[in-house]
Amino acid sequence: MSVRVGIIGVGMIGVDHARRLTNTLGGVDVTGVTDVDAARAKALADTLPKARVHATGEAVIAADDVDAVLVTSWGATHEQYVLAAIAANKPVFCEKPLTPTSDGCLRVIEAETAASRQLVQVGYMRRYDSGYREMKAALDGGAVGPALMAHCAHRNPSVPPYGYTSDMAITDTAVHEIDVMRWLFGEDIVATQVIKPRRSSRAAETLQDPQFILFEMRSGICVDVEVNVNCLYGYDIRCEIVGETGTLSLPDSASIALRANGACSRRVPADWRERFMSAYDTELREWVASVAAGDITGPTAWDGYAAAAVADACVQALHSGARVPVTMKERPAFYDRGAYQLARG
Amino acid sequence: MSVRVGIIGVGMIGVDHARRLTNTLGGVDVTGVTDVDAARAKALADTLPKARVHATGEAVIAADDVDAVLVTSWGATHEQYVLAAIAANKPVFCEKPLTPTSDGCLRVIEAETAASRQLVQVGYMRRYDSGYREMKAALDGGAVGPALMAHCAHRNPSVPPYGYTSDMAITDTAVHEIDVMRWLFGEDIVATQVIKPRRSSRAAETLQDPQFILFEMRSGICVDVEVNVNCLYGYDIRCEIVGETGTLSLPDSASIALRANGACSRRVPADWRERFMSAYDTELREWVASVAAGDITGPTAWDGYAAAAVADACVQALHSGARVPVTMKERPAFYDRGAYQLARG
Amino acid sequence: MSVRVGIIGVGMIGVDHARRLTNTLGGVDVTGVTDVDAARAKALADTLPKARVHATGEAVIAADDVDAVLVTSWGATHEQYVLAAIAANKPVFCEKPLTPTSDGCLRVIEAETAASRQLVQVGYMRRYDSGYREMKAALDGGAVGPALMAHCAHRNPSVPPYGYTSDMAITDTAVHEIDVMRWLFGEDIVATQVIKPRRSSRAAETLQDPQFILFEMRSGICVDVEVNVNCLYGYDIRCEIVGETGTLSLPDSASIALRANGACSRRVPADWRERFMSAYDTELREWVASVAAGDITGPTAWDGYAAAAVADACVQALHSGARVPVTMKERPAFYDRGAYQLARG
Amino acid sequence: MSVRVGIIGVGMIGVDHARRLTNTLGGVDVTGVTDVDAARAKALADTLPKARVHATGEAVIAADDVDAVLVTSWGATHEQYVLAAIAANKPVFCEKPLTPTSDGCLRVIEAETAASRQLVQVGYMRRYDSGYREMKAALDGGAVGPALMAHCAHRNPSVPPYGYTSDMAITDTAVHEIDVMRWLFGEDIVATQVIKPRRSSRAAETLQDPQFILFEMRSGICVDVEVNVNCLYGYDIRCEIVGETGTLSLPDSASIALRANGACSRRVPADWRERFMSAYDTELREWVASVAAGDITGPTAWDGYAAAAVADACVQALHSGARVPVTMKERPAFYDRGAYQLARG
Repeated sequence: MSVRVGIIGVGMIGVDHARRLTNTLGGVDVTGVTDVDAARAKALADTLPKARVHATGEAVIAADDVDAVLVTSWGATHEQYVLAAIAANKPVFCEKPLTPTSDGCLRVIEAETAASRQLVQVGYMRRYDSGYREMKAALDGGAVGPALMAHCAHRNPSVPPYGYTSDMAITDTAVHEIDVMRWLFGEDIVATQVIKPRRSSRAAETLQDPQFILFEMRSGICVDVEVNVNCLYGYDIRCEIVGETGTLSLPDSASIALRANGACSRRVPADWRERFMSAYDTELREWVASVAAGDITGPTAWDGYAAAAVADACVQALHSGARVPVTMKERPAFYDRGAYQLARG
Repeated sequence: MSVRVGIIGVGMIGVDHARRLTNTLGGVDVTGVTDVDAARAKALADTLPKARVHATGEAVIAADDVDAVLVTSWGATHEQYVLAAIAANKPVFCEKPLTPTSDGCLRVIEAETAASRQLVQVGYMRRYDSGYREMKAALDGGAVGPALMAHCAHRNPSVPPYGYTSDMAITDTAVHEIDVMRWLFGEDIVATQVIKPRRSSRAAETLQDPQFILFEMRSGICVDVEVNVNCLYGYDIRCEIVGETGTLSLPDSASIALRANGACSRRVPADWRERFMSAYDTELREWVASVAAGDITGPTAWDGYAAAAVADACVQALHSGARVPVTMKERPAFYDRGAYQLARG
Repeated sequence: MSVRVGIIGVGMIGVDHARRLTNTLGGVDVTGVTDVDAARAKALADTLPKARVHATGEAVIAADDVDAVLVTSWGATHEQYVLAAIAANKPVFCEKPLTPTSDGCLRVIEAETAASRQLVQVGYMRRYDSGYREMKAALDGGAVGPALMAHCAHRNPSVPPYGYTSDMAITDTAVHEIDVMRWLFGEDIVATQVIKPRRSSRAAETLQDPQFILFEMRSGICVDVEVNVNCLYGYDIRCEIVGETGTLSLPDSASIALRANGACSRRVPADWRERFMSAYDTELREWVASVAAGDITGPTAWDGYAAAAVADACVQALHSGARVPVTMKERPAFYDRGAYQLARG
Repeated sequence: MSVRVGIIGVGMIGVDHARRLTNTLGGVDVTGVTDVDAARAKALADTLPKARVHATGEAVIAADDVDAVLVTSWGATHEQYVLAAIAANKPVFCEKPLTPTSDGCLRVIEAETAASRQLVQVGYMRRYDSGYREMKAALDGGAVGPALMAHCAHRNPSVPPYGYTSDMAITDTAVHEIDVMRWLFGEDIVATQVIKPRRSSRAAETLQDPQFILFEMRSGICVDVEVNVNCLYGYDIRCEIVGETGTLSLPDSASIALRANGACSRRVPADWRERFMSAYDTELREWVASVAAGDITGPTAWDGYAAAAVADACVQALHSGARVPVTMKERPAFYDRGAYQLARG
């Protein structure tokens, strides 16, 4: 029996996911959609074999033919839909951020804890990328001994000239490294520092780009992240873990080698969709399977809260120039399973 | 409305495909299965939500709730099931070889031509591999000018000590290069020669391994293929196209780099399933979509025949040591569309 | 007419250089050697066709058949021999450090400035490595636009359990990055910070290893250096320059690829001698040629002083945990030519 | 005491070697030069500290201040100078080909055998390339088990439109692979076949380019060589040895990676001088050392003869299209030492 999914918010990522659930994955149907732009919702529904349009996100959540909810609306609305889904006791997959503030995340955590059942999964898709998974398996298998450092780069060819702020380099961009480092190492980030290198003349005048972000993990592992959102040349995600006996490096995407004009060259992905298409497929496939199995296993609301708390510290560090400790509530026992996974790596 | 597929023959590859259609792909259900080993068919059906067991392949084909047929039985039985599917006017995906002999292929072609509709697709999955597709796009886009040569290697870690013969290095193994070269270059192989290098002591005594197979394409492009089925170190597929202005090389699978013990190393896939898993997914996804659209577009029965005819010439060349021209019937106009694709590259 | 070189100090590096000058390079003869261990000096001289043993470094410098001096003695003695060579008006190549303290460097600078002629070259051999040179040429040629960041790693398989201190990770090891960054970017390092990641259990108990060192260049370029002297797996020097339009990465040493046992692997150099053998050859070849031409062009005493001043700041930063500005004297006009080279990139 | 070398023929390669012996190597002086163009010889001698101009090659050989001779004249004159050097009992390094015909080689062999001392070394510089040496060491060390095949490519960006014939693709170009395969495997080539792929439109009309040359080694190892002298994109030498348990691949030249414009690219060498500069240095360094030691160890006159005999068979195979066995005299016992090295790998 197929899982019936309702989608709230059908901007670019919502449409992507709707197509993914319909054409690429099995065992799932999109049965409801909604959007603040009703015409947009209708246009999408017309291309999906089983989807009805609903007037509101709440209506999607309430619909009898919706087993689980995908929240891909504007970030500021996430909290309200996630809380509604919890209230309706329906599994909900929420694209990052879980909520724009850590306070919002805490309200979700409180609601979910009260429901006594994991319903929420946050869309940190890197955990589903084959390269990161291979790194984690090698690290957990002892291939390089205990980890000491990690060097990361998160490079986008460009961002729009208006609207993308210096804070967003952290909250929208580096937040993926925040989550994936917590997951890879199975431990929390306890402090951060943000260094401002020479600004790229390609960046908008008000934007500090690149940024060089340092994380201190609980065990002392030191992580550095180059965030560079106007690198021009392509979308490039780099990661090297340094262990006591060796290092592990994330692979580049497989691409043919062209020998021509005095050089041997390989293509760099153009954007995040090309780079992480497979990871998104796997993420939703596993979520659908976990919904069907009644046992959600992906990134939790607590992971969403932790990412927000670390991002808060980073933003403060960006503005102060100083090292900023991360402030977090104590983790409810409810999240021990996830935490155990975290500790286990 | 989902495509309903019946599967004839549920050995390793049949079970793989059943799981793929059920768990990995969307818009498709496995509704019928059969196998010479009825218990095996039942065991599989028990794990599939909608599959019934049928006593025979013919019963699968005839079933009302089967829209299209997957033939993954023993090669010698392919012809009978493919002909039955054509007779029932149902699309049929047949794993390679289409039939063990080129005469069998011709009977399929005759039947399909009479049916006036493309129903048959042959399982040459390399055309669906992202690396080969990127090579073909670059070649067709003129990235290296007109092609002059191609260098290939097809390496298996090992084959069973009994049962795998020298002829099978061609008919079971090199046949993939036969198809993919015809597809990449959009032209036929007109002659072949097989050279016997020093035998590996790891090969069974009666097995000529490795073999070095040369193809002459119609335009004069010269293709060489190392077939090496006891290479021990992994499953490794290599291909470089040499054009007038540059070369294109098939990428290795993306894999993390491990620096340890004085070396920087990347994993080589262990077997064909690991190497081509994504290609199989894409192949069946596109087949299901083409069935739903009523317009089969994959490798045709004619491609199956051409591969068989080239393999026949190679086997003869292996035994004679001489250059052997490929003998083929004239292509029925029915296959012009596929042929046009072939000519177009 | 060959350049006649006298060598002061024939430990490992002195013997290496003696062999290099004698067997590998042309247009040069080693005519004098000395060492605190006279027997060692004699043993070496016996293998060189034209070398006499002298009782002291001063005697080497004074010898009529010595045109130029190579100082490869213990660091604490560098200053006395370099000053003596300047007094004798003979070109002197001094292995790094020029002197252990920046005050010593200033005394050398004063003497050389008084001599009104560049006599001193300091042994920063990375400037002669083909990879770094290719990076500098590409950077200066505008291949990646203005530089914004550089990511470096300096990894040694191990250091002796005693005698190598946390400070030496800076003064002996990272000092190469200090010089090569100044040279690549043609500007000074103005501040530094040293971060202490989780300690490797392979390091001696009193040793902070790895260290993560940050440099701020005058223009704002941000450089990070992982110094890791117990990495076990090999000697690995990494560098990526991030510019506004692209990045440049230092190549690994060329090494055959071995496909075996499920992996494709390349060797990592075992130690600095293997990694930089060619750079040492080029360094001394160009020094000999510059001596013959009467125009020394390599790293100056000022470069030696600058490296010492930056290292001083790093050591302070290691102990304080804070960002430490680099304090330097004003550069005498005497070094403007070198400075011009620096400014030019 | 330096080795005093006389050079006969100072075209491009002769001038290169004169500079190499003078500027790059130690323990050697160029003391005599000659050329059919006397002005050219004088112009070169004026740039060398110790070289006199001689009227003829014979005068160079006879000169008292010439210990050893470098023959870099036009191929047709090699035999006369090599024989004269043997008659004068002076070591002679002869650029390839030893002589244009195998008969000429046999006359050299006869003379050298009569002299009872190895005097001749032929300029096959690939044996001195670090990549080939690393491959040979790995192969001899058993890294991939017994060899079964080798795949080679020899690509030049272009050849002059006139004067370079189809035969020269063998005698001038593939001859390097002929020698290096005999050396790598320590055994002779016993038969050959030459296949004519589709001609490049970039090649002169009378030139068969590319060519695909097959060698059968005595033990059955099968070697294939793509010779492609109008590949446009750069100078590219490829070699992969396939053994029973793995494969070994020649590395590309180390070059920085540039990430820009949607691609990650590395430079391909522009020509043979860039690619093999180090190999030429090592070749002459070791030759000079062997002259000084009185024990020539490089490629022998017999190797020169073997290369010529194989090339003869290849040219015949190019024209006949058939497999052609290599015809060779029996090797004189005089060459057993070299042969032993050959057998040993």
